[in-house]
Amino acid sequence: MAAVTVYGPPLSTAVSRVLACLLEKEVKFKLVPVDMSKGKHKTPDFLKLQPFGQVPAFQDEAVTLFESRAICRYLCDKYADQGTTGLLGKKEGGIVERALVEQWLEAEGQSFNLPSSVLVMNLAFAPRMGMKQDPDAIERHAGRLAKVLDVYDQRLGESRFLAGDEFTLADLSHLPNGQYLVNTEKGDLFTSRKNVKRWWEDISSRPAWKKVVKMQTTPPS
Amino acid sequence: MAAVTVYGPPLSTAVSRVLACLLEKEVKFKLVPVDMSKGKHKTPDFLKLQPFGQVPAFQDEAVTLFESRAICRYLCDKYADQGTTGLLGKKEGGIVERALVEQWLEAEGQSFNLPSSVLVMNLAFAPRMGMKQDPDAIERHAGRLAKVLDVYDQRLGESRFLAGDEFTLADLSHLPNGQYLVNTEKGDLFTSRKNVKRWWEDISSRPAWKKVVKMQTTPPS
Repeated sequence: MAAVTVYGPPLSTAVSRVLACLLEKEVKFKLVPVDMSKGKHKTPDFLKLQPFGQVPAFQDEAVTLFESRAICRYLCDKYADQGTTGLLGKKEGGIVERALVEQWLEAEGQSFNLPSSVLVMNLAFAPRMGMKQDPDAIERHAGRLAKVLDVYDQRLGESRFLAGDEFTLADLSHLPNGQYLVNTEKGDLFTSRKNVKRWWEDISSRPAWKKVVKMQTTPPS
Repeated sequence: MAAVTVYGPPLSTAVSRVLACLLEKEVKFKLVPVDMSKGKHKTPDFLKLQPFGQVPAFQDEAVTLFESRAICRYLCDKYADQGTTGLLGKKEGGIVERALVEQWLEAEGQSFNLPSSVLVMNLAFAPRMGMKQDPDAIERHAGRLAKVLDVYDQRLGESRFLAGDEFTLADLSHLPNGQYLVNTEKGDLFTSRKNVKRWWEDISSRPAWKKVVKMQTTPPS
């Protein structure tokens, strides 16, 4: 029996961040669908797991957690020696290596996430859901994201991955929004930057992430 | 000689987050002012320290870091046994206790930070800087923040601090925006909620934070 349970649909970027981490770490898990179109994430039972009424919620033995990046850190700490190691820095790299991962993971959460989420919402989700797009927001946030990716492009000219020469949680955390974004009309934000393009091709072709994308495109049975 | 150097003005919320952590951990540091009104955070020399051109930048011996929450985690890991311990969870609490801190620290970064920053910018900074306020943004983000603080109020009815019964980085990280916000017309977002009010009075009266506020209100010599 799987000790780990994830609640939420794989199409959610935050859910897919956690799934990518579980698959990298080779942790067995059970995925419990949450039908957000029916408001199941706002029911009293779900709010006991996730008080903000968002996905994912997460359980592992005695602990219940929310916030995808916090769940990923927990998985890396708890299952340190299995699957892909070093997602929070190699053990021998100590505190400094972990800090470099945290630095770029925070750059994702604080600088990349907002503009990329606005673009994903407008360009990938809105058309599927019959929602109106906001052209001003698209241009404003594309401009913001371009500036962030200019910094990334410079950094990725110095090292293969954001935090150094190894794939870490800092890279992984960009996959969910990046995947939607590269398939929209603003995909050139990634593909027009030489080092970002190389990095994106590298991280998005990892077997764990390809499994997540397959889960996203397979209708629930 | 102080091994640790922080670059940036204490009035910056991100700088003051790092200062609060340094003072809690009783780590000696040197504060180097960065005159942002003269664009000093966009100079080539500063961009070598902080490629996004934001404050703070941070140095400790051989490592240079940015992103305030990443710097705080580093300080807690590196100076684990001095000053206030347990900011990332008590050692005996292990991985699960750290995960609970991370969960609420991410709630701050992902749910509290954006609406509170918009309010601080409009209600605290704009008047001082002669900038125009955006009434729509104020109301929209006050509404968002109210929902976040409703969840906090429920949580803080169960435990003294966000992650449990001890003061942690999750609480500390709310101080910078909270301090500006409570002194604006939207301060009742905090004071009208019984448990949030009690928690705010508790965390904002800590000696380390009072020193930061004093640094913010003392003109640089």
